[in-house]
Amino acid sequence: MWFGYMGPCLGASWGSGWALRAGEEGMVWTTLEHPEHSSLPAFALARPLRRSSLAPRLCPVPCASCPGLSPQPAPRRTPFLPGVALRPPTKPQQAMEGDLTLQLRIFDLNCWAIRYLSKRRQERIQLIGDMLRRERFDLVLLQEVWSEQDYSDLKARLGGCYPFSHYFRSGVIGSGLCVFSRFPILDTLLYQYSLNGYPYMLQHGDWFCGKSVGLVVIKISGIVFNVYVTHLHAEYCREKDAYLPHRLVQAWELAQFIRHTSKAADVVLLGGDLNMHPEDVGIRLLRGWTGLRDAFAEATRFEGCEDGCTLIPNNCFTVKTELLPFPLGIRIDYILYKAISSFTVKCEELKTTTGTAPGMDIPFSDHEAVMATLHIRRQGQAAGATLGTAEAMLADVVTEARTEVGVGLRAAQRQRYSTGRMAVLALLLLLLQAAAALGALAGLAAGQPFPKLSFSLLAFLAIGVLLLATGLHLFHTIEVKMLQGTEEQMRMALRALQERPSDG
Amino acid sequence: MWFGYMGPCLGASWGSGWALRAGEEGMVWTTLEHPEHSSLPAFALARPLRRSSLAPRLCPVPCASCPGLSPQPAPRRTPFLPGVALRPPTKPQQAMEGDLTLQLRIFDLNCWAIRYLSKRRQERIQLIGDMLRRERFDLVLLQEVWSEQDYSDLKARLGGCYPFSHYFRSGVIGSGLCVFSRFPILDTLLYQYSLNGYPYMLQHGDWFCGKSVGLVVIKISGIVFNVYVTHLHAEYCREKDAYLPHRLVQAWELAQFIRHTSKAADVVLLGGDLNMHPEDVGIRLLRGWTGLRDAFAEATRFEGCEDGCTLIPNNCFTVKTELLPFPLGIRIDYILYKAISSFTVKCEELKTTTGTAPGMDIPFSDHEAVMATLHIRRQGQAAGATLGTAEAMLADVVTEARTEVGVGLRAAQRQRYSTGRMAVLALLLLLLQAAAALGALAGLAAGQPFPKLSFSLLAFLAIGVLLLATGLHLFHTIEVKMLQGTEEQMRMALRALQERPSDG
Repeated sequence: MWFGYMGPCLGASWGSGWALRAGEEGMVWTTLEHPEHSSLPAFALARPLRRSSLAPRLCPVPCASCPGLSPQPAPRRTPFLPGVALRPPTKPQQAMEGDLTLQLRIFDLNCWAIRYLSKRRQERIQLIGDMLRRERFDLVLLQEVWSEQDYSDLKARLGGCYPFSHYFRSGVIGSGLCVFSRFPILDTLLYQYSLNGYPYMLQHGDWFCGKSVGLVVIKISGIVFNVYVTHLHAEYCREKDAYLPHRLVQAWELAQFIRHTSKAADVVLLGGDLNMHPEDVGIRLLRGWTGLRDAFAEATRFEGCEDGCTLIPNNCFTVKTELLPFPLGIRIDYILYKAISSFTVKCEELKTTTGTAPGMDIPFSDHEAVMATLHIRRQGQAAGATLGTAEAMLADVVTEARTEVGVGLRAAQRQRYSTGRMAVLALLLLLLQAAAALGALAGLAAGQPFPKLSFSLLAFLAIGVLLLATGLHLFHTIEVKMLQGTEEQMRMALRALQERPSDG
Repeated sequence: MWFGYMGPCLGASWGSGWALRAGEEGMVWTTLEHPEHSSLPAFALARPLRRSSLAPRLCPVPCASCPGLSPQPAPRRTPFLPGVALRPPTKPQQAMEGDLTLQLRIFDLNCWAIRYLSKRRQERIQLIGDMLRRERFDLVLLQEVWSEQDYSDLKARLGGCYPFSHYFRSGVIGSGLCVFSRFPILDTLLYQYSLNGYPYMLQHGDWFCGKSVGLVVIKISGIVFNVYVTHLHAEYCREKDAYLPHRLVQAWELAQFIRHTSKAADVVLLGGDLNMHPEDVGIRLLRGWTGLRDAFAEATRFEGCEDGCTLIPNNCFTVKTELLPFPLGIRIDYILYKAISSFTVKCEELKTTTGTAPGMDIPFSDHEAVMATLHIRRQGQAAGATLGTAEAMLADVVTEARTEVGVGLRAAQRQRYSTGRMAVLALLLLLLQAAAALGALAGLAAGQPFPKLSFSLLAFLAIGVLLLATGLHLFHTIEVKMLQGTEEQMRMALRALQERPSDG
């Protein structure tokens, strides 16, 4: 199977799940009436699921005209609406001057929308569109929207709430990446990863997708956001992961691309299906090398699947057998962030869906959606380079990643050698046949000539093997070069880390 | 033929050409003795070839301790050395504080070093190595170093003068790009262009090279240099240039890559074989969209081939018939630059080789080398965004480029359709054969069965056509996607230009 998991429907409703839990735990839904910002809601969980945060929320958009508003009790409480659990504010962004805070709500989902293969695709795309229109996030990052028609449908449906969008094209099938935004997209750039699986692994198919990282630049209230969306190579067998070197090359290229392109940004956001568990070397490399922080680990409040998992047995589209070693599921979809210049970013709240879509019998996708509420605040001085901290640990991570890339390199070199040898053997066979045929034509052969049918079949077989082996040889040659290139870049990075221990 | 031009040897010696011209025109080779900077040479041409610059050169590194030194006559003149024409300073860089000027000498050459195909390759690589060691540039940007062995040989030979180097790996053959530097390379990044010709155009072969732009980050005296080296798709027929849309996509991606990655740099340098004439839409797009300036157009002094040509009839490796419409040759190799932050960059001198290598009977390559001497000076305030100027003209260029990309898109769509149709026909033929074979097996066929040999040959032919047409169809599908993506990006750029006429 391709990019996700399918299986029997076992999941509970997302909306009702939330409603039940919120009701049980005494969730409070509040709206602060505010002289400048109309209808700015704040909500608090009396007992959050993962982390204690008992104090009632401060005003999300403090301003000079209402300094005493934040600690006040909520003036009005709206009842909890089942099916529209924790309905977010409709106008969360405010201009930010001086010490004001900007609130940004981000939605990330791997949509699992493969034409002809993904179950109930069109129905789910419609559900996703409805929910996005209802919830009015600020930024929506989607992956696996493989069909441009699905993107166009979403765009038509969401045009009113998200007037700006971009679809990233790449590879045979596409990158599957797209972004919907409430704010103008100023610029875009796509970087296609140099390695992405093998063309002959048709049952996995990642190679045909042109996996990439897409960048969109957005400016809100004078703050420049570099928003990245990506989808890395899938992991099909954790015990014997043949794609680990490729995924590591992708994680490295992703980190390098973010570092090099984000230097003029104020805030960096990355959302996507990274296909790596939180403790995997690729994630540690990405976080260490870019200084990005994990919204799940940093969130003040969390609500959703336990451990923030985004592939869970409760989702009716996941393959239960593949999740057997992980009874809670796995977390492979992330929202990461950092501030670069004189800003701080804080994740106030992180949520995931927990199975089915609200009021429906199916989930949005085989992945759970990740939704983050970030607070961006200007501060007096620059946040400083994040690379300066724990450089030794970072060097360890890069060394570990380099070792894995080295293992992949040796495997690729072996494959290059064996396919090259096969091509040479096929060529020799062809030459032998040509010599025999010429000999027969010249009447040199004693006795019976070869049977024509077998002879031509053998020739065609040899040509087929020659073409195939040559193609594979060329492919593995590229693979070797890319792995060598990454290994060398990592060596350079290690040298830089060792030489400049205190300089980011 | 592949990446260059070959032909009978007609060229004149580079060294002697220079020596003769320099001697005739009264070139003065001076070395300023300086309390802080030992052996800083300055040279002046009494009558420069292209532009009048009669005043003697100022001290290239002015400093507080010798304010009156610059206008003084040169205290010592060294005789002109034939074969080592205009021998450059050995220590041109100096720490720059306050208003001081940093001098940087850059060398750029398309080396035409294709294993087994390029004439006298090893000999020329050796010559290039010797010259680079002798001349001691600060930065050397090479293209078409396709063999990693050649790079390793150069690296071993140049290790003493250029302790830092990087080879960019990409594609089946490689990117051919490498950089040698006197200053530590802090970081690198490679961006492979999404389109680069066709895999079935074996006689051109660009597709196999993985044409890319390489970035190296260098810091000299606290100034951050983003140095880009690239090589775009060749132009094989100017009248009917089938690769124009691909080259335009590359020029656009190059411009976008530079814009997005150079925001934290102080100075941007780009060197390479752009395979475009100076007035071509791709060059105008690149320059307009990035704000890069052409060293040839900006240079105070120029010395070399007329009009700065880098593919000239005088070079014994160029194909004379291909240069017939251009008696002087064509200029397709460039050094471009700009300052981003509070610096100014000025090209004091630009030179090209003019045929053969000094004292030898062959040139370094089929291309002429380009050598620029840049002066980088800190200034009080930021240089400002260069995009702010002539926005309307830039919009015209983007529109023109977009039109060309649109033409390419329609051609690609036609090819995608025709290859798809061919694949379907081959599949139908195969199905027909399968039905006939099954019929024959079931004894349904009346009369004689098909001759086995013809039948299997036809089947193999159908399989071959099916595979080939499917491969081509997939390739043209990618091509269509990439052209669509670029067209959309250009549309977005145009919108941005129209909406924010004064904002870079």
